[in-house]
This record gives sequence, C-alpha cells and structure tokens, in this order.
Amino acid sequence: MGGDFGPKVTVPASLACLTQNPQLKLILVGDEAVLQSALANASAFEAVKDRISIQHASQIVEMHESPQKALKNKKDSSMRVAINLVKEGRADACVSAGNTGALMATARFVLKTIPGIDRPAIISTLPSIFGHTHMLDLGGNVDCSAEHLYQFAIMGEEVVKAVENIDRPRVGLLNIGEEDMKGNEQVKAAARLLENSPLNYIGYVEGNSINAGSVKVDLIVTDGFVGNVALKSIEGAAKMIGVKLMETFAKNLFTQAIGLIAYPVLKLFKDRIDPRRYNGASFVGLRGLVIKSHGGADALAFETAIHLAELEVEKNVLRKISDKLEQALTEKETA
Amino acid sequence: MGGDFGPKVTVPASLACLTQNPQLKLILVGDEAVLQSALANASAFEAVKDRISIQHASQIVEMHESPQKALKNKKDSSMRVAINLVKEGRADACVSAGNTGALMATARFVLKTIPGIDRPAIISTLPSIFGHTHMLDLGGNVDCSAEHLYQFAIMGEEVVKAVENIDRPRVGLLNIGEEDMKGNEQVKAAARLLENSPLNYIGYVEGNSINAGSVKVDLIVTDGFVGNVALKSIEGAAKMIGVKLMETFAKNLFTQAIGLIAYPVLKLFKDRIDPRRYNGASFVGLRGLVIKSHGGADALAFETAIHLAELEVEKNVLRKISDKLEQALTEKETA
Repeated sequence: MGGDFGPKVTVPASLACLTQNPQLKLILVGDEAVLQSALANASAFEAVKDRISIQHASQIVEMHESPQKALKNKKDSSMRVAINLVKEGRADACVSAGNTGALMATARFVLKTIPGIDRPAIISTLPSIFGHTHMLDLGGNVDCSAEHLYQFAIMGEEVVKAVENIDRPRVGLLNIGEEDMKGNEQVKAAARLLENSPLNYIGYVEGNSINAGSVKVDLIVTDGFVGNVALKSIEGAAKMIGVKLMETFAKNLFTQAIGLIAYPVLKLFKDRIDPRRYNGASFVGLRGLVIKSHGGADALAFETAIHLAELEVEKNVLRKISDKLEQALTEKETA
Repeated sequence: MGGDFGPKVTVPASLACLTQNPQLKLILVGDEAVLQSALANASAFEAVKDRISIQHASQIVEMHESPQKALKNKKDSSMRVAINLVKEGRADACVSAGNTGALMATARFVLKTIPGIDRPAIISTLPSIFGHTHMLDLGGNVDCSAEHLYQFAIMGEEVVKAVENIDRPRVGLLNIGEEDMKGNEQVKAAARLLENSPLNYIGYVEGNSINAGSVKVDLIVTDGFVGNVALKSIEGAAKMIGVKLMETFAKNLFTQAIGLIAYPVLKLFKDRIDPRRYNGASFVGLRGLVIKSHGGADALAFETAIHLAELEVEKNVLRKISDKLEQALTEKETA
C-alpha cells in the first residue's frame, strides 16, 4: 500500500516479477478489496495466480507519519503485517515503498537486531565508473560511534560478497580527505578498527569515490546522516544535469533538430544511468530481511527492489551476516 | 606557486584578469625568478605591467603537507607571504590554489577570526536548476555545534547578499529529511536558533536541494564534514554522468556519427555545466579576505577565483560580515 503510488505500482511490479521467476511466491499485504480489484484487472494475473496471495491489513502508515505514532497506532498497517509475516517465518523477506522511518522502527521493534548489533543500517547500490559500489548507512542512524561504523562494514561486506559474487570486497571509509590526519574523531577511530580487522580495508575515500573515484571501491562505510546527504546530493546532481541537457537540446529549432537525430543515443544514455535500475535498499542487522524501495518508485523501479529481495533470499545473506557477526564477536572476546 | 600547476596556471589567469579589469592590481607572490620568466614570456604582460608586481617568497607549501608543519616550517612560503600582505593592508585579498588545510591554518593564524566567531568557514557557489546556490561549511570544520552553524548562516547571508545582489537570501539547513523530527541533535538545535533569528530561514533542506530541490534556496548551511562530502559527491556524480554520456556516443560508428552531428549542442551543454565557472571558495570569519581555488584549476578556472576576490572586495563583504556579527552579538547580549 506504501509509496507515492501504492498498488498502482506494487501490483504490476509483483506480477512482472512472478512472470519472470517461476520459483517466486508473493504475498500482497494491504486492503484486500483494493488489492483484489487491482489483480482482477491485470492481464498477467491469470498465469501466476497460484503463486500470489493477499494478506489483509486494515491500516496504512502515511508517508509523513512519525515512526513512533505508526508503531503505536498502526498495529494493523500493511507495513506491520508484512513484517510480522517475516517474523513468523511465513515470508522470507518484506519489500516496501512506504515511510522509511516507520519501516525501520517497525522492523526493529518486530524483528529485533542480530546479537551483537546495536543498530540496523540501510545499504544500497550506486552506479560508478567502475560498475557499481555499495554504501551504508544511508539514513538509519544519525549519530554513530566508531564501533557502529565497524559493525556496518562487517555487515556490508557480507551483502556485497553475496550480491556481487566477490570474495574480498574493497572497503573504504568515507572521509573529507585521504590523508591520515583528516576527518573527525569518530572516523579516525573507525579507521583504526578497520585497519586491524580481517576486512579488505583500502583506507579513506572521498565523496567523489562514490560514483567516480580514482580507484574502485566495492563498499563505502559512513554514518546515516552523511550517507543520506551524499545519496541525495547525487540524486540532485543527476537531476540538474538531466534538466540542463534537455534545456540545451530544447534551446532553438537548430538544437531541437539535432536532439531529434541524437534521440536514440540520448535514450540509450538515459537508460544506462536510469536510477530505477538501482532501486532498493536493504536493512541489515535485523533478524529478517526488509527491503526499502524509493517512495517515488514506478513499477519498473519496484521490480528492481523485489529482485533484490529474491537475490538476498537465494544467497542467504541474512544467515551469512549472522554467522560473520557471531565469529567477529567470538574473536573479539577471545582476543 | 600553489595548486597542481603553479605559475603555468596562475600567471596567465592573472594577466587575463588584469586585461579585463582596468581597476585591478595584482601582486604575484612566489619565487621571483620563476615568476619573472613566466611574465616575460607572456604576450599580455606589456599592456598591464604597471598593475602587476612580484613579491618574493622562497618556500612552497606542498599539496599534501600537514597544516601544522607548514605553519611551523614554511614561514617564507608563497602562501604565508601572500596572507601577510593582507594582514599588513598591502593587499585587499589573497587568492590561492594551494593546500586547503595549510591555507586555512595559516589564514587563521595570521589574520585571526572576527570577534565573536569561533571558527572560520568555507563558502562556495554551486549550480542549481534555479541558477545557483551557496553552501557553507565545505570543509573547514569537522565537528560543529549548533552555535557554529548559526554563525555560518549569519556570515553566509552577508556573502550571498553581496555577491547575488539580493536582500533576503533564503537560508536552508541541510538535513536528512524535511520533517521536524528528523536529524541529529546538533542540526535540531541549530534549527531552533535559526527560527528565532532575523534570517530568512526556510527550514530543513535535503541533499538534492543543493542542485535541484523543489524550492529555491540561496544559502545552505551545514558542517564542514557533511558539506565537503556533499560537494565531492556531486563532483563525482557529474564526472560519472559525463563519462557515461561520452561512452554512449562512442559506442559504435552509428552513435559516433550522431555524436559528430550533436557536437555543437553537447559542447554548449558542457559549457553550461562547466565546473570552472564555479571555481573559488571564500574563507569567511577571518579579518581578511582569502579565496581558495580548486587545486586542479586551469587558467580559466583560476580566473573565476580571482573574479570572486574582485567582487568581494568591491562589495566590501568583509566589512559587512563584521558589522552584522557585531550587531548579532549586541542583540544577544541585550536579549
């Protein structure tokens, strides 16, 4: 029910994913009447109907509702019921385009964190000139200690290993310079923890390394405030550049004519940097998989978020994170 | 002498600025022999030679030298001597492409801060879909209190008023959400100070508002860590998008042919988003004007930084900031 468009986006995306993956089963959580009518009107429904079911939920968490209020007053919201399904083992993952703060608060309350983890974090994939990179935390935690950043690195490594099929992801710590003397105390202390860890830590990276650094980095670790600002700054830059590119081609009849000729290439370019291909952020550190889609996602973008859930379930990311953390904690206690 | 290219960039840029502005006088600070030979070889020198002089300095601060070491061991560096000229009233402003940390430390040590200001900040202009916006701090201060952010806002407002010729700049506070409940404690406390100030405070803005928000914002206030990461994240995004655009046009003979046809429009587009048009960051909060150019600036970019110095001197920005701060402090004491 969540996101800016609700079932108009989530239902077609669900049907498309079911059509693509014959192993997939989906439970749509929300207003039964609304969902039934959306399914009845969809031509793709018939072929996949054995693998889709509806779980009724009478409430909806609004996009700007406070997490505390949602937690207290919306015990039968689609978000809460969907996370309950994960808790009860009836679903392997929950995918939502709803209110991020409420989703995180509900997931944390219902699922609880993995032993040894203080705070769950949000991780997502971003495009880069080397392919792509992963970054966490993207907004779960506004004030983080060095130890939290270290925990994020350990969890993030497991996600990247599983999702990218690589053994030793290159881990960078986001800072405002690459020299040792730069940065705030929290970042410097986190660097010391990472240097002494078994992770493939490559040192400090700067903001430009997210999309286009001088060396490839697979995982960038930062606190939720900085990560969220960086992510949204990049979104803004991409939007502005797109607007200015279109304005330049729209300038006069001559540029418009060239725009028509260049259209197939511009279209190809747009597809290559399409943010919908990167939709879907995972909450890590919880005893259950929760994937957050961008609230403004269209059906194609929401499909990407569902695919991410499929991949993480298939690769058993949750189990791997728990095992790794248990191991890290044991090593720490015996050290 | 500073930056990645030294006099190869700074000398031609200086001559170009002198040619453009007949009121301008420049003192080149650095190795006399090197500078004299660079001037002697420049065709533009003859026409402006009455307005350009050389101040010898025997040392150079390296780009990755620690600020503390530069301050201690490089008392005759071009950077230090140039800032001394400002201190002594022999120059109205100092423009440097050198080591940012060393420049800030030296400027702070030599010039001192304006009464009432704990920490100088770095402010610069960034392009946006509404024209452009200004942001501070971009890296001067890694750990800021709410009071520091408030001081940044007051200083930034004066810069924006002078540079943009507007009366009441719209001031936003960078946060990870627009709702009141979002953000860390420091940002929330700064918001309360701004709400109760005479500034035209419009509330929280997110990272995407730097380049492409839903409303126009003239000045964005944040701490130096977040500001620097946001700035560099945007640089990285722009670089990646440029690379991907070029790759798409280079894909095959067909796209290359279209690229040739579209070249004039792509060139126009490139000029429109040319980061060299935005080069130059001002240090604010000091008893003297210091402008930092990007270390990798070419001559055109370095010209922009000199133009910024000319504009700030002409508009008497320094005096305006001091007066405003004195007034703000008096109001606070009598309140």
